[in-house]
Amino acid sequence: MNFASDNVTGACPEVLQAVIDANESGPRMPYGNDAATQAIEARLGDVFDTEVKVLLVATGTAANSLALAALTPPWGAVYCHEEAHIQNSECGAPELFSGGAKLMPLAGPQGKLEAATLEAAIDRSGSVHHSQPAALSLTQSTEAGTLYRPAEISALTQVARGAGLHVHMDGARFANAVAALQCHPADITWKAGVDALSFGGTKNGCLAAEAVVFFRPELAENAAFLRKRTGHLFSKMRLLTAQFEGYLTDDAWLRHARHANAMATRLAEGLEKVPGIALHYPVESNQVFARFPRAVTQKLQAQGFQFYAEMHEGASRLVTAWSTRDEEVDAFLDATRAAADEAAA
Amino acid sequence: MNFASDNVTGACPEVLQAVIDANESGPRMPYGNDAATQAIEARLGDVFDTEVKVLLVATGTAANSLALAALTPPWGAVYCHEEAHIQNSECGAPELFSGGAKLMPLAGPQGKLEAATLEAAIDRSGSVHHSQPAALSLTQSTEAGTLYRPAEISALTQVARGAGLHVHMDGARFANAVAALQCHPADITWKAGVDALSFGGTKNGCLAAEAVVFFRPELAENAAFLRKRTGHLFSKMRLLTAQFEGYLTDDAWLRHARHANAMATRLAEGLEKVPGIALHYPVESNQVFARFPRAVTQKLQAQGFQFYAEMHEGASRLVTAWSTRDEEVDAFLDATRAAADEAAA
Amino acid sequence: MNFASDNVTGACPEVLQAVIDANESGPRMPYGNDAATQAIEARLGDVFDTEVKVLLVATGTAANSLALAALTPPWGAVYCHEEAHIQNSECGAPELFSGGAKLMPLAGPQGKLEAATLEAAIDRSGSVHHSQPAALSLTQSTEAGTLYRPAEISALTQVARGAGLHVHMDGARFANAVAALQCHPADITWKAGVDALSFGGTKNGCLAAEAVVFFRPELAENAAFLRKRTGHLFSKMRLLTAQFEGYLTDDAWLRHARHANAMATRLAEGLEKVPGIALHYPVESNQVFARFPRAVTQKLQAQGFQFYAEMHEGASRLVTAWSTRDEEVDAFLDATRAAADEAAA
Amino acid sequence: MNFASDNVTGACPEVLQAVIDANESGPRMPYGNDAATQAIEARLGDVFDTEVKVLLVATGTAANSLALAALTPPWGAVYCHEEAHIQNSECGAPELFSGGAKLMPLAGPQGKLEAATLEAAIDRSGSVHHSQPAALSLTQSTEAGTLYRPAEISALTQVARGAGLHVHMDGARFANAVAALQCHPADITWKAGVDALSFGGTKNGCLAAEAVVFFRPELAENAAFLRKRTGHLFSKMRLLTAQFEGYLTDDAWLRHARHANAMATRLAEGLEKVPGIALHYPVESNQVFARFPRAVTQKLQAQGFQFYAEMHEGASRLVTAWSTRDEEVDAFLDATRAAADEAAA
Repeated sequence: MNFASDNVTGACPEVLQAVIDANESGPRMPYGNDAATQAIEARLGDVFDTEVKVLLVATGTAANSLALAALTPPWGAVYCHEEAHIQNSECGAPELFSGGAKLMPLAGPQGKLEAATLEAAIDRSGSVHHSQPAALSLTQSTEAGTLYRPAEISALTQVARGAGLHVHMDGARFANAVAALQCHPADITWKAGVDALSFGGTKNGCLAAEAVVFFRPELAENAAFLRKRTGHLFSKMRLLTAQFEGYLTDDAWLRHARHANAMATRLAEGLEKVPGIALHYPVESNQVFARFPRAVTQKLQAQGFQFYAEMHEGASRLVTAWSTRDEEVDAFLDATRAAADEAAA
Repeated sequence: MNFASDNVTGACPEVLQAVIDANESGPRMPYGNDAATQAIEARLGDVFDTEVKVLLVATGTAANSLALAALTPPWGAVYCHEEAHIQNSECGAPELFSGGAKLMPLAGPQGKLEAATLEAAIDRSGSVHHSQPAALSLTQSTEAGTLYRPAEISALTQVARGAGLHVHMDGARFANAVAALQCHPADITWKAGVDALSFGGTKNGCLAAEAVVFFRPELAENAAFLRKRTGHLFSKMRLLTAQFEGYLTDDAWLRHARHANAMATRLAEGLEKVPGIALHYPVESNQVFARFPRAVTQKLQAQGFQFYAEMHEGASRLVTAWSTRDEEVDAFLDATRAAADEAAA
Repeated sequence: MNFASDNVTGACPEVLQAVIDANESGPRMPYGNDAATQAIEARLGDVFDTEVKVLLVATGTAANSLALAALTPPWGAVYCHEEAHIQNSECGAPELFSGGAKLMPLAGPQGKLEAATLEAAIDRSGSVHHSQPAALSLTQSTEAGTLYRPAEISALTQVARGAGLHVHMDGARFANAVAALQCHPADITWKAGVDALSFGGTKNGCLAAEAVVFFRPELAENAAFLRKRTGHLFSKMRLLTAQFEGYLTDDAWLRHARHANAMATRLAEGLEKVPGIALHYPVESNQVFARFPRAVTQKLQAQGFQFYAEMHEGASRLVTAWSTRDEEVDAFLDATRAAADEAAA
Repeated sequence: MNFASDNVTGACPEVLQAVIDANESGPRMPYGNDAATQAIEARLGDVFDTEVKVLLVATGTAANSLALAALTPPWGAVYCHEEAHIQNSECGAPELFSGGAKLMPLAGPQGKLEAATLEAAIDRSGSVHHSQPAALSLTQSTEAGTLYRPAEISALTQVARGAGLHVHMDGARFANAVAALQCHPADITWKAGVDALSFGGTKNGCLAAEAVVFFRPELAENAAFLRKRTGHLFSKMRLLTAQFEGYLTDDAWLRHARHANAMATRLAEGLEKVPGIALHYPVESNQVFARFPRAVTQKLQAQGFQFYAEMHEGASRLVTAWSTRDEEVDAFLDATRAAADEAAA
């Protein structure tokens, strides 16, 4: 059983079927010059209840980097949490796409930035010697699996706006946040001051599909050129378009996210009851960070359970997905209890 | 009917089925750290009868740019045909990926470079004021649909090698070349002096899959970092891997290419017989360049036939694919004959 | 005697004295935040009879690249003559500074572009697959030592403007052009449609000083950040400022350029009379391109005369400078006559 | 009186005279292809008692960025102190020159890195998701005016070497460090594990001259191309060469650094005796960080004394230079005492 990430599983049935259907749809003009791709933009507009500009890509790194490059000049500074994916796990992609923007990592409890920290960090000197404040990037749900409430986002974006920053949201796990917060997608994006969203599909039922959603269309003006020159414009765009067709239809994206979240809750509730094991972060979406005795970890891994052990501050990470089954969670809990008992003996 | 390109159609059944199967294959570690992806590298080694290093990506622009970036430093010069895709149709992607390499477009008849032209063009001054000769890029089959014979490639790569250049082949339509030349894939790649190949899948039956194949493994050493930082490392690598599984099994790739080539031949042979219409380039693979009277073009387009009219030197381009049917070709020929008769009347 | 270039000599007395004086001027705030540097901007405004924004740098490559980067996005295309310095002699600097703009080299007689050539070359497709038309770069005086007349510049910039291009002028030898054309500096710059000028000092009496002059201030807005992040912002800006103080005072720049031009004329008139030697381009400024019999070239070089032999289309290049003396020209002519006689004997 | 920085003053007499002399030295081949420039490389070899490769540039940002770009690939990570100039004051230049290397700022007391901090920070995962450990950059003397002893440098470079990192030293104030430590220049560079040094001239008597000194010649191999394509290759190289001629002759560089250090000591000793004023960092070279009551600061600035007030952690910075005179220091101390008395009254 594999709790290493929500990307270890395949596509959900709705997405796969949409790809199959699109494949049979006859000739389509390439590079997104087809009606279905245009329709996806309109559908995302419906999801967010506002006009949007959309670029589909296949990876989260591409989505984040394209979005950020649209929000910052090469001499811009991008403020983000020090645990952010753009800072730690993209091998410099945002810098490459933007032509040199500088990430400014900031600390914050439980994977979240605080408005006061941002306020204090922004360089308002205007000095040519420093990268110039250009953007704020928030991750929702965060790398710690925690969530920003709408008011928290607004507090941050208000600081950002006051300093002339654009705001990006890395929503690789955006669906999990919307599902958990039971809010409207608009509430934690444009209504809270977000300009561009990396709307993730891959981790929640797609095979490889992310949408860069611009809530201020003028920011998207040049993104199409950058998508092309970074090699992210698909000729058979139907592959990406179809995934989003399946993902959005009948709110499959929210249904799957709710399921993944529920599996995480089940897992967390079970773990909490095991002596010697403690949750490290509040479990608010589909990630569980917990501290295990090392002997327990080793025993579990020896039995074939996969997860990132002692990934962060001694805590191990377990991630649930659209495809995680009750039995898998329960099997993990059973094994953990047994290992903990043994370790305690 | 759509002859605009070989990318207007979907995936072939073998590829689609492989994607479906892979999707059901249970958890796989992400980012290519799975057995199936490793196996693809070995299978491509079998195809080329030598050890290879392989990076899978989803677009031809990504494949070309990754390959070239591995062959040239930022201050390098890349010699290519003036009609090359890397020069004309990638919006500066090779320059971006390589950190600044300069393309040096050269003329040549029928879409092909000649060894003497390359020889004369290479800057051997070593001067710090000029980009330094670093790579040669050939397209096979060419943008004109023509083919380099093994000896022609060797003549070019010998010049390149003599000047210290690495050699790249843009094989977006590589399958069509192998099928048409009835040669072994090795004969027009590493045995003829090619160091890295963009081995195209998308135009010949995949949805979005290209393999960067390095015949000299040491050249691939750093390509994985660049793939990541350009956003081209897929978490659910199964999507790309499976496409190549389907593409290579039972030589589906060659079977489809042979079919596409045959359709182009059928089309060309038909067009040649129509008074007032002349082929512009020899038809050697799956692209037909022909000069139509404008009235004929307009008539055909009005009837819904899609192709690039007067794309190059007054010639229109028609491309056939794995999915092109005899009846489609014949319908186009019938319509053309009728339009030509009418125009002549 | 050295006719290899106008950069083989030192600074003229006016410039050197200004540097000496500035050195004694007491503390000055660094990075151009001093009154003298601000004054230079105003003085250049007087020279051009319009408001200008100015950035001082130390090399022509930096000046050209900074200017171009202000005029084009990373996905822009820059049209230029195929012999242009930016295309051939800057090792990709314009591409680096601009984050990837693509140079589009065009042919043209005697080092000059023609409006019709530009008109035909501009890609108006708007296609995301191509670098987008962004700028025209003209060299005045040209690499061939020839000159654009005001009307020729206007014809070119009108085409450019019609296609939405900004216009740059590489004026490494701008002074020689103004001196030769006996025009006002405005006539061949902003009044003729030029947006930004690399106003050269180094080749005409400075040690290392070039001014990027923006005639449309809004284009300069971000250039200061790029100057900094390319390492071209001098802390002791007095070094650059002083050179321009000396260069502009009492029109030293024009006086020196007139002298250099006169020396070239003297040289050309002498060479024309030598049997077997032919001028290759009209001699309009301070560069002489002439075809010498190889025996004559070898004899001259053996005697220590320095110049670029058979640099271009078989023609050798001789460049005169502010410091070239009559006797040097005459000595070269004497030696040439003797060598030609001997070769003919 | 201006204590804002050591770059507010002009060139020392030795340097200025050398420039004047070089200006009269007759024609020299451009771009460093002259005997004097080659000789400077040999002289720097003598200074460091080992073979070196040298590139002269005009700014510290260019020197640091060129050096770092030679030590790291675009996907490399560069560890440095969080107060380092490369991190805070170069507007992203190292990132631009290196094509994307990522700076990893680390904390450390008194402007200095500690080996254990470096050891803990180095990412040894080899994961393609992270920038790869490539270089360590130390500043000597530091931004806090403090010094690394040879053994401290060795301890750091040993960690670096163990992880495969190259080592750069930002020596914008290198002379002050050598003078203060009374060591041989080799002791704190190559003998202590440094691969490349930005050897500063500008802040210590030059107008605009820095030498990138490579102690491992193979690392310099490609730096010349980057120097050209970043616009830092001077045609009249005599300007840079001559400055270093004057700077090195009769150890002018060390004499001036000793003087500047002595002035800082005089200043610090005086300030320490003033009630209410405290030194913030140990004064080891030519920078004094001290905490002044705000009323005192305001009084001093109103009298025309220039320095960066409350620049860092509430401490103000005063910098002395080769040209600082005893009387200037004493005048500042007198004024400070008076202001402090008044404030206390």
